[in-house]
Amino acid sequence: MNVKVIINTMAKVMLIEAALMVLPLAVGFIYGEDCVSSIAITIAIAVVLGFVLQKLTKTNTKGAYIKEGFAIACLSWIVMSAIGALPFVFAKEIPNFIDAFFEVVSGFTTTGASILTDVEAMSHGLLFWRSFTHWVGGMGILVFVMAIIENPDRSINIMRAEMPGHALDKFTSKSKTMAKTLYYLYLAITGLEIVFLLLGGMPLFDSLVTAFGTAGTGGFGIKADSIASYNAYCQWVVGIFMLLFGVNFNIYYLLVIKKFKNVLESNELWTYIGIAVGATIIISINIAPLYGSLSETVRTAFFQVSSISTTTGFATTNFDVWPQLSKCVLFLLMFSGGCLGSTAGGIKVTRIVVLFQTLKNDVKRRINPRSVHNVRLNGKTIDASEEKNVSSYLALYVFVLIITTLLISFEPFDFESNITAAVSCFNNIGPAFAAFGPTSSYAAYSGFSKLVLSFAMLAGRLEIYPLLVLFARKK
Amino acid sequence: MNVKVIINTMAKVMLIEAALMVLPLAVGFIYGEDCVSSIAITIAIAVVLGFVLQKLTKTNTKGAYIKEGFAIACLSWIVMSAIGALPFVFAKEIPNFIDAFFEVVSGFTTTGASILTDVEAMSHGLLFWRSFTHWVGGMGILVFVMAIIENPDRSINIMRAEMPGHALDKFTSKSKTMAKTLYYLYLAITGLEIVFLLLGGMPLFDSLVTAFGTAGTGGFGIKADSIASYNAYCQWVVGIFMLLFGVNFNIYYLLVIKKFKNVLESNELWTYIGIAVGATIIISINIAPLYGSLSETVRTAFFQVSSISTTTGFATTNFDVWPQLSKCVLFLLMFSGGCLGSTAGGIKVTRIVVLFQTLKNDVKRRINPRSVHNVRLNGKTIDASEEKNVSSYLALYVFVLIITTLLISFEPFDFESNITAAVSCFNNIGPAFAAFGPTSSYAAYSGFSKLVLSFAMLAGRLEIYPLLVLFARKK
Repeated sequence: MNVKVIINTMAKVMLIEAALMVLPLAVGFIYGEDCVSSIAITIAIAVVLGFVLQKLTKTNTKGAYIKEGFAIACLSWIVMSAIGALPFVFAKEIPNFIDAFFEVVSGFTTTGASILTDVEAMSHGLLFWRSFTHWVGGMGILVFVMAIIENPDRSINIMRAEMPGHALDKFTSKSKTMAKTLYYLYLAITGLEIVFLLLGGMPLFDSLVTAFGTAGTGGFGIKADSIASYNAYCQWVVGIFMLLFGVNFNIYYLLVIKKFKNVLESNELWTYIGIAVGATIIISINIAPLYGSLSETVRTAFFQVSSISTTTGFATTNFDVWPQLSKCVLFLLMFSGGCLGSTAGGIKVTRIVVLFQTLKNDVKRRINPRSVHNVRLNGKTIDASEEKNVSSYLALYVFVLIITTLLISFEPFDFESNITAAVSCFNNIGPAFAAFGPTSSYAAYSGFSKLVLSFAMLAGRLEIYPLLVLFARKK
Repeated sequence: MNVKVIINTMAKVMLIEAALMVLPLAVGFIYGEDCVSSIAITIAIAVVLGFVLQKLTKTNTKGAYIKEGFAIACLSWIVMSAIGALPFVFAKEIPNFIDAFFEVVSGFTTTGASILTDVEAMSHGLLFWRSFTHWVGGMGILVFVMAIIENPDRSINIMRAEMPGHALDKFTSKSKTMAKTLYYLYLAITGLEIVFLLLGGMPLFDSLVTAFGTAGTGGFGIKADSIASYNAYCQWVVGIFMLLFGVNFNIYYLLVIKKFKNVLESNELWTYIGIAVGATIIISINIAPLYGSLSETVRTAFFQVSSISTTTGFATTNFDVWPQLSKCVLFLLMFSGGCLGSTAGGIKVTRIVVLFQTLKNDVKRRINPRSVHNVRLNGKTIDASEEKNVSSYLALYVFVLIITTLLISFEPFDFESNITAAVSCFNNIGPAFAAFGPTSSYAAYSGFSKLVLSFAMLAGRLEIYPLLVLFARKK
């Protein structure tokens, strides 16, 4: 492994993060808050460390191989989170470093699981930074880094490490230009949401952080009751935009270049919409007795479905008190997640579409062993090797989930709390059920469990393989 | 589909069941119980129905094709269970037919989930029949039927439907002779357990039913506290025999024909033993504060590990009150199950061995795309297609589990109860956690949920595919 290339990239990551922190610094300055000094110190540390490391590791080696790509993918998230946690510690708003690290990993991985017991007591500067990590994490730190790093060969390997599943829609071959277009789209849709929220009477600061949380499908709120205290219009806006950010960005790209036929052929998109509509209907019927009017029932059901299925994690109600059937539907939505190529986490609808066809073909093959059936995704037949990747990814997914659950089972919480906490963090959602429902926080877990869950969030975000490769024996 | 062949086989199944019922009839007669008349009436019904159907469907068609094989596999279990439920209903010991059906499906599928709230009030005759269904189900009704049906070509297709995973150790190609040898082994080991239990001072009736429950890895007990009231020696005997019945019967066959080297090469066997030893150690350490002596702690831990990992479901303690870590380990053992080719249910250790190697190779391949790695099972390299079958089986497994959980979520029980009940029934274990722990019964579920769980037990026992093919559209 070429350690110099890796450290050199980490140095760049630090400088980028320092630049990103100028925004929360400005926010803190506008509100005249004490957090300004702690953000400034962190920026100074990141800049000095970044420059020194860059000088020390100056290298002419071109290109990063796959293993380096995986290592860079993992370490970038860890380095960004470790540095991003410092302002919270310095400002004593989250005095414990592990807590702050958990919070920022949760931010960058767009999970939205929080250890804060009183979010409304935080300064505006740090609340802004916390939500901004969602927005940065959303499109993937590495896509971000990649858009800046000059070497395109290296970028492709890093991007492959970052988004293993994207091979399914040939994202990796589209390189830098494509990434930039997607990035502009991301910016544009976020801007659109901010405008819609402002029109609904939401204050500017709230609109910004809510849009960041939506865009990254993160879910950090700035109110104790998440989105519940905003008006019905704003809840609809957030609900719909969450769903939009869970769509494969390729779809928007196809709309921009006017390939409408390809959009219609996307069985991934229609399955995704179908799941959301179906779940909303089932839950609406099931929870109707709990809410006043039909419009309130549907809005509440839709908001929670959209929030959980896109792995955002905002809430407008305490869904932990819902009847078992609705909780069970939400639990299943935790797994399915959004589409590949979106900012959402989870298994992803795309893989579920492939899996279902594989299973259907498998049953057909068992009845008639000589028959041949293909798996079609978005109008194209996919290779058997891609099909196999989906199956083995799912097996690995289950395995990591089991290990995570086992490691946090030393805690005194009940079965439902521990399992749903592991599922929620690993799928980058945020709230779980029971002890870690939408109205409570992860503060009660021990430092060890918080670290385990932090790695689960990273594993979920990076789709496991990069972390595994990093820990694999050198050969 | 050739309906005549199917009905003809069902008629044979009924006659076999009538013959099997002579044993509980004799037991009821010895104890001078009222259940004798209800068993006699059921035998009469089965014999008459069996002969009439056989006359009506007399056919010269030879061989059953795959689809017929699958249909016969499913329907045999359903017919056996429906008829086997009748004596309980007639004797009014389980007045409701759905309850009795659940109980007998649970028996034949060797699950051991019971709806009885007071098992000690039952007659000896019906308790014997209830446990005897475990023993019959254990080696597979179809292996049983197959040993009698004369047409060997047809048998192979039925056997393939019955045990899809067995292709992994080339069981299917060994046909009738092999099946008979295995059946004698099954008989011999059961006999050995009965002798060991009698030596420990267990009454003859108790020894017989306990051995039936162990051999089939079923788990129906005849005491309210399962095995807890028997002495420590008997608990060790049952614990060890459960583990023995979870071993691939091929291993015993290899021992009989003195191929010791092949036994040593069985990574499936060593993984199975490793899991049991590892889980016993973890749980012993975790539960030590709850029990008096080291020997009691280890015995209790080992018994529960052996019972759950072989999907038997006997208990010597209420493990639902154990600390979370131990419950979590037991929960995981619910999935892994015994070895393929044993009487145990679950995913099966064999598949887990294959899966782990697939995942390891997958990670290696991602680092070095040109490298080639094979999956080795018991000293032989297995095909890529067999590897793919394991992955797609697991995906299907998860899917069925989800559907089952969703369907029983209409019930007012909590998350832990419903999920573990679905897992426990689908893996043919028996007891779950919380509301359905080892000290309670499934009586509280509605008729609908009992039927759903009955089908989950069947799906688990038949390894899903036959049921799916039965419901698949004709093409």
